Amino acid sequence: MGNNGPVVAIVGATGAVGTTMIDIIDARESVPWSEIRLIASPRSAGKVLRVRGQDITVQALAPEVFDGVDVALFDVPDEVSAQWAPIAAERGAVAVDNSGAFRMDPDVPLVVPEVNAANASERPKGIIANPNCTTLSMMAVMGALHREYTLEALVVASYQAASGAGQPGIDRLQAEIAAVAGKDVGVRSGDVAAALAEAGLPAESPFPAPLALNVVPWAGSVKDDGWSSEELKVRNESRKILGIPDLKVSATCVRVPVVTTHSLVVHATFASEVSVDAARKVLAEQPSVVLRDDAAAGEFPTPADVVGGDPTYVGRIRQALDFPNTLELFVCGDNLRKGAALNTYEIAETVAAGL
Amino acid sequence: MGNNGPVVAIVGATGAVGTTMIDIIDARESVPWSEIRLIASPRSAGKVLRVRGQDITVQALAPEVFDGVDVALFDVPDEVSAQWAPIAAERGAVAVDNSGAFRMDPDVPLVVPEVNAANASERPKGIIANPNCTTLSMMAVMGALHREYTLEALVVASYQAASGAGQPGIDRLQAEIAAVAGKDVGVRSGDVAAALAEAGLPAESPFPAPLALNVVPWAGSVKDDGWSSEELKVRNESRKILGIPDLKVSATCVRVPVVTTHSLVVHATFASEVSVDAARKVLAEQPSVVLRDDAAAGEFPTPADVVGGDPTYVGRIRQALDFPNTLELFVCGDNLRKGAALNTYEIAETVAAGL
Ligand SMILES: NC(=O)c1ccc[n+]([C@@H]2O[C@H](COP(=O)([O-])OP(=O)(O)OC[C@H]3O[C@@H](n4cnc5c(N)ncnc54)[C@H](OP(=O)(O)O)[C@@H]3O)[C@@H](O)[C@H]2O)c1
Ligand SMILES: NC(=O)c1ccc[n+]([C@@H]2O[C@H](COP(=O)([O-])OP(=O)(O)OC[C@H]3O[C@@H](n4cnc5c(N)ncnc54)[C@H](OP(=O)(O)O)[C@@H]3O)[C@@H](O)[C@H]2O)c1
Repeated sequence: MGNNGPVVAIVGATGAVGTTMIDIIDARESVPWSEIRLIASPRSAGKVLRVRGQDITVQALAPEVFDGVDVALFDVPDEVSAQWAPIAAERGAVAVDNSGAFRMDPDVPLVVPEVNAANASERPKGIIANPNCTTLSMMAVMGALHREYTLEALVVASYQAASGAGQPGIDRLQAEIAAVAGKDVGVRSGDVAAALAEAGLPAESPFPAPLALNVVPWAGSVKDDGWSSEELKVRNESRKILGIPDLKVSATCVRVPVVTTHSLVVHATFASEVSVDAARKVLAEQPSVVLRDDAAAGEFPTPADVVGGDPTYVGRIRQALDFPNTLELFVCGDNLRKGAALNTYEIAETVAAGL
Repeated sequence: MGNNGPVVAIVGATGAVGTTMIDIIDARESVPWSEIRLIASPRSAGKVLRVRGQDITVQALAPEVFDGVDVALFDVPDEVSAQWAPIAAERGAVAVDNSGAFRMDPDVPLVVPEVNAANASERPKGIIANPNCTTLSMMAVMGALHREYTLEALVVASYQAASGAGQPGIDRLQAEIAAVAGKDVGVRSGDVAAALAEAGLPAESPFPAPLALNVVPWAGSVKDDGWSSEELKVRNESRKILGIPDLKVSATCVRVPVVTTHSLVVHATFASEVSVDAARKVLAEQPSVVLRDDAAAGEFPTPADVVGGDPTYVGRIRQALDFPNTLELFVCGDNLRKGAALNTYEIAETVAAGL
């Protein structure tokens, strides 16, 4: 780390996203930072974490920790970001926020570098927002296709991983899998729930129903007319990132028993005709997209292959038989990497380059 | 069982669907049959199964087993049905077939009793087909809404259970869950596959990728232009059952680590306007549909609740915000019951009543 480079702070360094952020920084060939500060709650203060060969002591979040900081990455719950990102900005840092606190604020750009990097420099509040992981999982793919064919409508069904609910989500799924293993459950109503209770798992869970051997059609909080916050985020954030205010979007968000990596089935309608071959060619050219699409050879992306990697994977590309100008796609992205820490870090690199 | 009633044969009585068929017959208050014959491959011949308190010896499939049979239920692979259902019909039985062998034959009705029961009596070949389980999981719901609002288009994403691949699918998922339990896998590319190999699971599997802690965007065989057979069945069978030859359908079929019960996210467009409240009212009135739809109270269907039951469950009903006359729904149905054995048995009861 150079001595003259900017100073970066990772707020929420001990969480699921923060830990992945550290992995990403560790794996970078070089980083622009002269100093890396790790911040979390008082619960974690004093913990020592190793980053690029250096032991760094986690500090409790406080206004002073931002003194001298150029870029502050926020990987903490919404309410913590809402309170503290403005404080970091006030103290002179550019805050890059992974929470939902600022994404739809008209004075805060919502950035996916391969789609709208230029927006990162218009930040009147000193805050840049990172999209929700579900939206982000398809943005590199949809952004590339939109540039060529002009996107008009998206119908999306998600297959969201447990780690979308942070480290508690991962822990819960792993405990549930252990509780049902070797038992003949999932064959009678309620037998999965009974197996979890029998194994001593608390009724309190990050998920509103058992997740092992199940799928749960709910993620986020309750919004008007039966929509979940997660579903409305896919609509609102896709519109803002792609710069299509009237993009038609309908999403249904479903949690699945996968540890990490969100998948999406996308039915995408464009203004102009698009063939499968042309779409494949466009996607194969994107540096951050991997095309895995040969059904006859058994090639398609799955979370178990994609997890731990940076790119967005896409496959199962088909021309809809009964809907004009429409493609069906299956997209997978690691929700902790491109879906959160990686995209945030890429924004931070963009900001650092412009400092 | 009365002495004068018709004779029924269950072909494939030892499989996932056949076993469920026996459960259903056991649970019926009364049955019209004077005799129940159980048929399977020579591998199972001689096995004794208990049905409604009687021990019945499984017979190997042969032309003679159909002598005197009035209704023959086929719960066997496609090629076995293709060969043997006509033989049963020739010997005077009405064959009700659960396989894919005859579903799109114009001389074979494709029946879901609550949607098109009358079609069961027009059977020039003596064969009636039972729909594919994925299609069937949404037919009671879509049939009811179609009667009121005239269905025009369906965009479907499936969350299909392992038992859709029969008993070998169930066994494989359970073995995979045991192999990953207690291990920190699903966090790096390929670590789930490595855990399965380490546990000694054969590379050969009913699924083209690991299913534990994963989702697999493939079910069925390879068809033209990247489509899977399962996805085209949803299109073709929905059209035939609902009697809408030009229904627009796009489906993406994805396998999930659930033992039994298929779920579907459905984006359904109608000819006329439909409110959520009106749709709920229509669905609540269907005897074979259970409405579980109160997001604020955490009420929605999940496979773990629905499994083992007869009805189709529906919830998460929302009016699409940007698509006119369109509802979003989440539907769950036990693929071995309504999706297979139950619907077949209901057809058999309809046939028996008309004999
Ligand atoms: N998981 C995903 O896929 C994903 C994707 C995109 C965006 N996000 C967003 O990223 C943020 C972090 O999510 P996560 O999944 O990493 O959550 P997590 O695993 O629960 O981690 C939360 C982090 O925030 C810290 N924290 C909590 N309360 C704090 C407080 N009052 N003051 C200071 N630090 C506090 C925690 O520190 P302690 O360890 O000291 O408690 C921990 O480091 C959330 O806003 C989430 O919505 C998550
Ligand atoms: N699983 C579902 O969700 C589902 C839903 C709808 C429709 N279906 C269809 O229902 C059929 C049965 O599926 P499944 O899931 O029950 O399969 P399964 O568990 O593999 O059972 C297959 C059954 O067929 C018998 N069989 C196989 N080859 C035979 C032969 N040559 N002669 C006589 N019997 C033979 C087997 O007898 P042995 O035990 O003696 O081998 C067994 O009873 C398939 O066509 C399937 O596509 C399945």
